[in-house]
Amino acid sequence: MKPVNLKELARELNLSVSTVSRALRDSWEISTPTKQRVSDLARKMNFQPNPYASSLRKRHSRTIALVIPEIANNFFALAIKGIETVAREKGYHVLIYLTNEEVEEEIAIANSLQSGRVDGVIMSLCGSMQDTEHLLELQQRNLPLVFFDRVSETVAAPKVITNDYESGFIATEHLFHAGCRRIAHLTMSMDLSISQRRQQGYTDALTRYELSIHPERVIHSGRDESNTYQRIKALFLSEERPDGVFASVEKLAVLVYHICRELQLKIPDDIKVISFSNLLTASLLNPSLTTIAQPAYEMGREAAAILFRRLEKKTSEDRVMLPAALEVRQSTRAGS
Amino acid sequence: MKPVNLKELARELNLSVSTVSRALRDSWEISTPTKQRVSDLARKMNFQPNPYASSLRKRHSRTIALVIPEIANNFFALAIKGIETVAREKGYHVLIYLTNEEVEEEIAIANSLQSGRVDGVIMSLCGSMQDTEHLLELQQRNLPLVFFDRVSETVAAPKVITNDYESGFIATEHLFHAGCRRIAHLTMSMDLSISQRRQQGYTDALTRYELSIHPERVIHSGRDESNTYQRIKALFLSEERPDGVFASVEKLAVLVYHICRELQLKIPDDIKVISFSNLLTASLLNPSLTTIAQPAYEMGREAAAILFRRLEKKTSEDRVMLPAALEVRQSTRAGS
Repeated sequence: MKPVNLKELARELNLSVSTVSRALRDSWEISTPTKQRVSDLARKMNFQPNPYASSLRKRHSRTIALVIPEIANNFFALAIKGIETVAREKGYHVLIYLTNEEVEEEIAIANSLQSGRVDGVIMSLCGSMQDTEHLLELQQRNLPLVFFDRVSETVAAPKVITNDYESGFIATEHLFHAGCRRIAHLTMSMDLSISQRRQQGYTDALTRYELSIHPERVIHSGRDESNTYQRIKALFLSEERPDGVFASVEKLAVLVYHICRELQLKIPDDIKVISFSNLLTASLLNPSLTTIAQPAYEMGREAAAILFRRLEKKTSEDRVMLPAALEVRQSTRAGS
Repeated sequence: MKPVNLKELARELNLSVSTVSRALRDSWEISTPTKQRVSDLARKMNFQPNPYASSLRKRHSRTIALVIPEIANNFFALAIKGIETVAREKGYHVLIYLTNEEVEEEIAIANSLQSGRVDGVIMSLCGSMQDTEHLLELQQRNLPLVFFDRVSETVAAPKVITNDYESGFIATEHLFHAGCRRIAHLTMSMDLSISQRRQQGYTDALTRYELSIHPERVIHSGRDESNTYQRIKALFLSEERPDGVFASVEKLAVLVYHICRELQLKIPDDIKVISFSNLLTASLLNPSLTTIAQPAYEMGREAAAILFRRLEKKTSEDRVMLPAALEVRQSTRAGS
């Protein structure tokens, strides 16, 4: 006997498709006699649920997930705008999940995404990446995944990044040319490949300009901001105080400004400062902040465009690298 | 025969509870012979799904939705932290939806939330609120709803706000005491009750200090930022240029700083500026910005606490008003 579909079964039973569907799923909304009637006829008529249709329906939540470590950062605010612009063109919603830099949160979020509530995922990893099992599991569910900025090098998924090594080199070189000889580097967790690359650029620039490398001048910030504040302050009070600071993330540059004010150190006279940053107020600060600006909006657009190409089963790039730009302002003014 | 539950049924079948549950829901992940085996024994052992447990499970997505107009604003960044802190204590996830100040987006989001993917909703309205039908529909679904900051006065749901009228009065009064006599007000959509209250405080302060009211000195910003920029610039170029500006939202204060720089107007000598703001860089700007700071983190915490009290069927306040605080800095320095 030719298998019937849900619609034919419903017609035969003189019930709505939705009632039949719920009866077959043993929904408590349907009475036991009705369930019995439905399941009896379903067996008799050789009803086969269509796994493809069911799977297809599941794939069309018209929602994508964006998983990011924090929100109080203009880089992510701009990237979100880029992602949302593309998603809206496609008629999709963007759900934003915050990991707050905690790997446990990231794992819990990745697990909840496996339930099929979204069609695809764009991620920027948290700063404490020990294992990637939860990311691999997402992929095993055939949930398209795209990384941006804080990417995983061990998970095979498309990545949108900037030239982090080169930017780290250029930032350090800029401080050298401005007259700095004791250059500190403030950065994030070394679990992140972008931190490794930026620091490698810093180290190679020091070597290139024959400056000695002092590991105590590199500070990795943790989630405890007051601890980071104290460690930077201790460095600034040390005998060999840095005369230049390269911050890998904008909140560390803001900390440096506050610490310099507290210690009555003048920027740029006593310490010059350059930072990776998309701060809207960078040019309005006292003094204005020299930045390495990532094209955050474009990175968001690119990540979303790749995700939709994957959803539409089209080919896409595996790796897109966009250039970051040096914006020289007063905080690294030379000759002072 | 005494009905068995899912666990007993699974034990009898030597299958996992989740496999049995999926088999009973006719999941395509389970093979037809297994389904047959499960449903046969379920009938034989008089298995009854527990409708209460099932309903409870449906209500327990352990997720709440946060619907906000924009993300590049430190007020919302801090409020999110407050909401997340409470949600995490309760073992809940927070999903963030952005309306981008568009009522169509807000309606689409509210509709998608009706599907039951979240247990409750915290909202700050977008700036173009004409109707509230989508909010009333959410309530008809028995989805607990709490407003914060940008609240609806026509929808009966708990609200967490600050003393917006009083703050508007104090901000304007502060400019008067600093010597300003031509005070402009830059604000958001007048559809929002917080805009109405802040503007009423401004108007009443002008009246209190016998300053005449000039409607052309009040600018309502739209979503088109470059248009807002042009209108503020035109006001600053007009014959009766304002000598004081009260901005209702921080991005307008940032615009004012940029425009003053372009027009070579000195803050505070030519124009004094005060703004509602939670900018982390307010004290670092050139000159540092006098602010009315809302307790954004606490407002987020309070909104989340009320939502969870509603979810736990406990009584909660209908309206919480927290005080905002004036922080005087250089941008309103008197006697210049």
